[in-house]
Amino acid sequence: MSLLVVGSVAFDGIKTPYGQVERILGGAATYFSLAASFFTQVRVVAVVGDDFTEKEEQVFRDRHIDIDGIAHEPGKTFFWAGEYGDNVNEAKSLDTQLGVFANFDPQIPEAYKKTEYVFLANIDPVLQLNVRRQMNGARFVGGDTMNYWIKDHRANLEQMLEAIDALLINDTEAKMLARDASVPRAAQKILAMGPKAVVIKHGEYGATVFFQKGAFGIGHHPFRAPTLPIEAVTDPTGAGDSFAGGFMGYIASQGKLTREVFKRAMFYGGVLGSFAVEAFGTERLQSLTRAEIDERYKVFRELTHIEQKLVSR
Amino acid sequence: MSLLVVGSVAFDGIKTPYGQVERILGGAATYFSLAASFFTQVRVVAVVGDDFTEKEEQVFRDRHIDIDGIAHEPGKTFFWAGEYGDNVNEAKSLDTQLGVFANFDPQIPEAYKKTEYVFLANIDPVLQLNVRRQMNGARFVGGDTMNYWIKDHRANLEQMLEAIDALLINDTEAKMLARDASVPRAAQKILAMGPKAVVIKHGEYGATVFFQKGAFGIGHHPFRAPTLPIEAVTDPTGAGDSFAGGFMGYIASQGKLTREVFKRAMFYGGVLGSFAVEAFGTERLQSLTRAEIDERYKVFRELTHIEQKLVSR
Repeated sequence: MSLLVVGSVAFDGIKTPYGQVERILGGAATYFSLAASFFTQVRVVAVVGDDFTEKEEQVFRDRHIDIDGIAHEPGKTFFWAGEYGDNVNEAKSLDTQLGVFANFDPQIPEAYKKTEYVFLANIDPVLQLNVRRQMNGARFVGGDTMNYWIKDHRANLEQMLEAIDALLINDTEAKMLARDASVPRAAQKILAMGPKAVVIKHGEYGATVFFQKGAFGIGHHPFRAPTLPIEAVTDPTGAGDSFAGGFMGYIASQGKLTREVFKRAMFYGGVLGSFAVEAFGTERLQSLTRAEIDERYKVFRELTHIEQKLVSR
Repeated sequence: MSLLVVGSVAFDGIKTPYGQVERILGGAATYFSLAASFFTQVRVVAVVGDDFTEKEEQVFRDRHIDIDGIAHEPGKTFFWAGEYGDNVNEAKSLDTQLGVFANFDPQIPEAYKKTEYVFLANIDPVLQLNVRRQMNGARFVGGDTMNYWIKDHRANLEQMLEAIDALLINDTEAKMLARDASVPRAAQKILAMGPKAVVIKHGEYGATVFFQKGAFGIGHHPFRAPTLPIEAVTDPTGAGDSFAGGFMGYIASQGKLTREVFKRAMFYGGVLGSFAVEAFGTERLQSLTRAEIDERYKVFRELTHIEQKLVSR
């Protein structure tokens, strides 16, 4: 099944303890679509400026991603610069130039409107809701958000939350959104706001999915997936979006929402996130193969599973 | 196989968002031995004062724990009072009265000297090393420590680390000990200090065990075990010691150090820790049954395992 993502395509300047890049392809929709492209057909709705060239388009095309939905506007593409210190979970923003992204008003092409799986990457919840309403036939809609919208646009965000199936956020955002210092309690409070599932990402410790009672007919027990203990996180940028891409991409590829599908999706999310941080920007996702993904999926199992031998019985 | 623990037996005063107790049985060796007692015969070496009565002894006896090694000295038993806020991973110490613990110089009874499994709970590394030397025939020795020893007694601690098989510490301690902000890198640096295995506890996110290459002949891939996402952590005191008790107790019960044994031990550690925090002090460990432990072990698997159904194939 196809998967539509709406979000930012950008250029990033990134500094980490492992190096520095001035200007490379980035943006939530970029990481997401590259990660998801290993599982399913991906369509992107985004906006870019005059500085977005054939070279950048080729990155998507090489992964057979449909970019007809990327609008080209006069002006500059969204640019973000940030720096990571020893704590890879926290970026210090150095520069943000919205450019053409400031007036982003996503219009879904007719050809995309029947897409059954949709991901609303981190943009203004008003725009997310607008997209959601254009995609009435969607079967499963995931969404992301960030502290800025939680703090200053809560009413809009709450409307968006009522309209999606799964929210993917990190620990800090979950606690802020739920106004609760406990992650498991925060998860329950977020579920009460609307989404049938909430995936809370714990950075280097993995992620947990919590379900509403009765949602998808699969029981409400949470499921926890690991990440790889990585000694050298070269560039954490895009790890969360790559997780979302692996998660949503796998779900879309299966065409059914069983507990087993969600569990594997959590693992694939972690796997894609773990690859994304191995190199600067989208570099590692560009060179990645499905065989490498499946190999690391096995490593994730070995990292967490008891009686692994039962598999080959 | 029997398991010896050397550490503190104490009284605690505890305040958490869920309530308050003035003075209840506590101490690392207490939590550890109660947790381990569900798996194997446990022997305790500790020191208590005049205020330690038949009532407290009965808590150990009810779990068939051998307390002949608990020395009774004139004076008061170690007392600690602390408070937890919303962050259950951080206790604020309100009062510490060492009492007879100030002169603790653990002597191992002859009857204990052949014990093959040993846990050196968090005490002065000089005493830990002293005990280690009294237990020459031990097959597997685990140890704990804390920031105080890491900061101000590093040379002694390093000697201790050379003499044990496994160190169990938390993220913050691991980073401090290794002087490295990355947990996976810190793990490798700690392994280089001596222990063949290091178990790093991530609080609410579970724990990861890292192995030296070639240690125990089981390969050096890490293994990660979860904890339960608990909405109401009634009292976090003793969670780490209960983890250690479940971990060491299960290992001692198996009598062999295979990768599968370590993996299950990590799960049982998490299970015992998750029970410990459900009530104040040792209350929950006292009422616990092996059936409940095995039931929760299954929940831990369900929380983390893909293709659970393969078990019953």
